[in-house]
Amino acid sequence: MSAPLRLVGGDGKERLRLWIRLLRVTREIESELRERLKSEFDTTLPRFDVMAALWRAPEGMMMSELSRFLLVSNGNVTGIVERLVADGLVARTGRDGDRRASIVRLTEAGRTAFSAMAAANARWIEELLGGVTRDDARTVAAILAAFRSPWEDDP
Amino acid sequence: MSAPLRLVGGDGKERLRLWIRLLRVTREIESELRERLKSEFDTTLPRFDVMAALWRAPEGMMMSELSRFLLVSNGNVTGIVERLVADGLVARTGRDGDRRASIVRLTEAGRTAFSAMAAANARWIEELLGGVTRDDARTVAAILAAFRSPWEDDP
Repeated sequence: MSAPLRLVGGDGKERLRLWIRLLRVTREIESELRERLKSEFDTTLPRFDVMAALWRAPEGMMMSELSRFLLVSNGNVTGIVERLVADGLVARTGRDGDRRASIVRLTEAGRTAFSAMAAANARWIEELLGGVTRDDARTVAAILAAFRSPWEDDP
Repeated sequence: MSAPLRLVGGDGKERLRLWIRLLRVTREIESELRERLKSEFDTTLPRFDVMAALWRAPEGMMMSELSRFLLVSNGNVTGIVERLVADGLVARTGRDGDRRASIVRLTEAGRTAFSAMAAANARWIEELLGGVTRDDARTVAAILAAFRSPWEDDP
């Protein structure tokens, strides 16, 4: 993983350039996913993200955990969860009325709905990242291994 | 963009795995940048993004171009630009009162403010991506070259 004999003389902007490219890839793809989630499933990306996080935690998550995992504020997640609850896709188990400490999980309907969206999402990613060979995909994922999320179930 | 001779047999999840990792990298770093921009410059990431786009277009950009470049809706950009104009960091040249067709550009104060933020941002990225060697950074950027943005001035 390391290059101890780093070339002297590089312009020192490799990481910034990498960052700009990473941003561009994720924004372009997210923008496309956003449109497809809207047109195919009448849903939004933040909603999909919340359901994806809950999918990986069948026993449920505390709201605070969910926010931390998604790296967004508790306030943002709360509104999304409210609507998912109203739609019958998420169930909330109260804890003495303290809403922040409540546990949320996908309902059976939520799991069914999410699994259809996740399958479509996987196909879309396969297509949108089709220009990246599988070997290259493995290479990049390995280089960025430090950013593997704790919930990730792959090696 | 196509992979006609796709290998049969791999588990076929390399690209999805790559995508999850790309998302995680950008979200973790964006979350950190968001906090630092707030504490060091009392500004926000969308504001920084708008100024970064305008920095690269000294002759100015139409609002619609700016939205397209940032991959966000016109409505979102409008509010940010309004505030930058109010703060004297962005100037708007009207076009017969059609606000959507107006040209916006950084003012001199905007260029000064942005260059300080951009220098800090470059140092932060260097630090946050410090675990990625320069060689690896070059490798990843090359693999993702198809996502090079038209405004990018590097090779």
